[in-house]
Amino acid sequence: MEPVVLYDTTLRDGTQGEDINFTSEEKLRVARRLDDAGIHYIEGGWPGSNPRDEEFFRLARGWKPKQAVLVAFGSTRRHGIAAHNDPNLQAIVASGAPAACIFGKTWDLHVTDVLEIPLADHLAMIEESVAFLKSQGLLVIYDAEHYFDGAKANPEYALDTLLAAAGGGADWITLCDTNGGSLPHEVEELVGTALSHLREHADRKVPLGIHTHNDCGLAVANTVTAVRAGATMVHGTVNGYGERCGNADLTSVIPVLQVKMGRSCVSPEKLAGLRRLSRYVSEAANMIPRKDRPFVGENAFAHKGGIHVSAVRKVSASYEHIDPELVGNRRRTLVSDLAGKSNIEVKARELGVDLNDDGEDSRKVAREVKRLEHEGYQYDVAEGSFDLMLRRTLGRFKPHFDLKSFLVTIRKEKDRKCNAEATVKISVNGRDCFMGAEGNGPVSALDNALRRALGQFYPEECASMRLVDFKVR
Amino acid sequence: MEPVVLYDTTLRDGTQGEDINFTSEEKLRVARRLDDAGIHYIEGGWPGSNPRDEEFFRLARGWKPKQAVLVAFGSTRRHGIAAHNDPNLQAIVASGAPAACIFGKTWDLHVTDVLEIPLADHLAMIEESVAFLKSQGLLVIYDAEHYFDGAKANPEYALDTLLAAAGGGADWITLCDTNGGSLPHEVEELVGTALSHLREHADRKVPLGIHTHNDCGLAVANTVTAVRAGATMVHGTVNGYGERCGNADLTSVIPVLQVKMGRSCVSPEKLAGLRRLSRYVSEAANMIPRKDRPFVGENAFAHKGGIHVSAVRKVSASYEHIDPELVGNRRRTLVSDLAGKSNIEVKARELGVDLNDDGEDSRKVAREVKRLEHEGYQYDVAEGSFDLMLRRTLGRFKPHFDLKSFLVTIRKEKDRKCNAEATVKISVNGRDCFMGAEGNGPVSALDNALRRALGQFYPEECASMRLVDFKVR
Repeated sequence: MEPVVLYDTTLRDGTQGEDINFTSEEKLRVARRLDDAGIHYIEGGWPGSNPRDEEFFRLARGWKPKQAVLVAFGSTRRHGIAAHNDPNLQAIVASGAPAACIFGKTWDLHVTDVLEIPLADHLAMIEESVAFLKSQGLLVIYDAEHYFDGAKANPEYALDTLLAAAGGGADWITLCDTNGGSLPHEVEELVGTALSHLREHADRKVPLGIHTHNDCGLAVANTVTAVRAGATMVHGTVNGYGERCGNADLTSVIPVLQVKMGRSCVSPEKLAGLRRLSRYVSEAANMIPRKDRPFVGENAFAHKGGIHVSAVRKVSASYEHIDPELVGNRRRTLVSDLAGKSNIEVKARELGVDLNDDGEDSRKVAREVKRLEHEGYQYDVAEGSFDLMLRRTLGRFKPHFDLKSFLVTIRKEKDRKCNAEATVKISVNGRDCFMGAEGNGPVSALDNALRRALGQFYPEECASMRLVDFKVR
Repeated sequence: MEPVVLYDTTLRDGTQGEDINFTSEEKLRVARRLDDAGIHYIEGGWPGSNPRDEEFFRLARGWKPKQAVLVAFGSTRRHGIAAHNDPNLQAIVASGAPAACIFGKTWDLHVTDVLEIPLADHLAMIEESVAFLKSQGLLVIYDAEHYFDGAKANPEYALDTLLAAAGGGADWITLCDTNGGSLPHEVEELVGTALSHLREHADRKVPLGIHTHNDCGLAVANTVTAVRAGATMVHGTVNGYGERCGNADLTSVIPVLQVKMGRSCVSPEKLAGLRRLSRYVSEAANMIPRKDRPFVGENAFAHKGGIHVSAVRKVSASYEHIDPELVGNRRRTLVSDLAGKSNIEVKARELGVDLNDDGEDSRKVAREVKRLEHEGYQYDVAEGSFDLMLRRTLGRFKPHFDLKSFLVTIRKEKDRKCNAEATVKISVNGRDCFMGAEGNGPVSALDNALRRALGQFYPEECASMRLVDFKVR
């Protein structure tokens, strides 16, 4: 079956997400990572619209991607100006990117009521803008904004805009569900109509792309449905970052197409890097990774219910829709009062704790978990705490140190930086140790002081331990 | 068009989500809220599987829902035991719930390799379990677990299990995509096949339900596709909480069905309470509400891009797929360096700051936002900070107080509770004030001390201000 071309817009549409901001240097690092991940087109930004994107394209001039094509985004020319004089189109050419993606209107309402210009004038704007960029040697992708809403409101005009882009020489035409309000069966029908109209009326074959938003929770469905209907390029962002409810999440779209539908996107090695790509981009965007993210989230293959855990031990396909390793993920077992003996046994084995064969130990621990979770404790997110509770319940816990006291101070004087200090007092095998340290904040100061104190007794263990994250709400 | 029946399993399948835990009292509060929201069936839990769910059904005995039907969940009887002697089925009857939902296997692999029993025996288990619960006067919903995987592996056996449930007298049969691995076009086909098989071979009409999981990001799509194919009951959870990647999110399913597909689920008044329901359940589950949640999230109708904001001012339908008020949500405007003059003007008006008509003020502020965001500031999540920056940039800011210094201490002695204290020194119009306070933690102590100090000068303002949330990462 025909492979599918991947078009990433994390660095442009993704940054429309409320909490998503990249500096231009971060953008370039993400672009390199997307190239490594096998993405075919990388939309870097909208040169001219803001200083960050301008700087990004300046920085990117020295970059030679392994296989990806860098794309500069923009709009069709303004009304009443020649394409070669339009500052926006000039900025795209000046960016030095080998490809351009420009958008135009599909929906007659937008042309008449938002742009407030005649419908025919807009068709000329599309065709001439595409033709100008082609004349400058760029590969051109035309984004038909609001395609599905436009095609429902005025099908003839919507199809005319596609023919205008094709007439200008567009290499690809993307149908965009800009408001994210379309349903899969509508997308299926309208992609089919657009394809057959172009086949009949355009002077050459113009392949179609699909660009969806998640306002109905249907972005992935609309994307893969469009591919079934004949689109061969998918637009999306890593982790689905994007304005409002986000864009189509490439970390779902790629495995659905490749593993479930047999439509090749990247090599199997690159597919196995998908979880790492997702984590890399969430780190770069300073977003907490969603544990429940399909395919790549920490919980995508985590089993909590006792029945599921015991069945997965017998037949792995029984509660897993794909092999987690295909996308670089792994199976996890969670402990909670919904879980029975099976979870406890699997978990204890992971932690290297031997349980009696007769099941007495695992029943005892399961009872203790049920009792404590009934009191409000929660072990499914606290593997370290579960480890300690397991050993305590079985009478195998030996404390490594005893905390006697600690004191933390945070001091701020006008016009000076905030200062945090901590002192701790611990005791190990009867030997007391009192230690102090500074830090960036109270937790960091306490971490440093405790680390210095414990380091006196356990230097190797302390060297291998890091404070990765903590949450206060 | 035929209305769709809503079946909520937040309190059962939802609690399989890693971070989701409710006490039995919380469960009852959520159940009341679901009843108010117009949900038709509320699955309360699995009596007998854990003490919390048992206690929930005890508590629920005194509850008279306005219109909802409370459902107890469980499995078909064990192999080699009569239905009336099965402890699990007895627990369902003893729960006092007027309806039961029991699940059985569809997939022959599960019967032979997980249960390890003959295929025919399992059909008897289904039929007899349903018949026993019917004989006890309960309404019975049969959940066909792994329906889609089973129907792909062995279509005849899958259909036989449905006929067994129908033969036992099931009121509803739910087709479950337990592993969440099915695609919309598969769901469409297999729901159609199941419906026509039942129509042909069952001795009466048995309506179908659909129960999906989000492992491919397709739960909402699979649910609404099943309804298009003839299912008339939808299972889901509020906010899509559930194991692994979650269940179908009712806060998306309901508006898609009702607003987009014309399939009535609840009254328009109840639909307008959807955002509040979503927030209520995330509060009860102690989960941070997802801002990008379709329909009900804080960002579902938030506009960041300058072009979008200016277009929405002209024609609201231009970048909004539905009227936000239909689901109790509202339009928001975000400020960021992607935004132009329009955002600034809309935002300033919201904040009650007059800008010059000539656009000079808004351009000045837009430049300042671009400059500061380029330096790393982020205003789109910080409306209060934007307000201050706006007034500072326009020379209209007057400080209300001057912070001279603060000191916070956190002290912990062995076997005692942790203690946090703060002192602050502020100055208002040349008058100094020094104040101290305790708190649950450092932020709370500082909040209390600052509040006491400012309260000397601004008693009314302080009384109306609350520390709602803060984030440390």
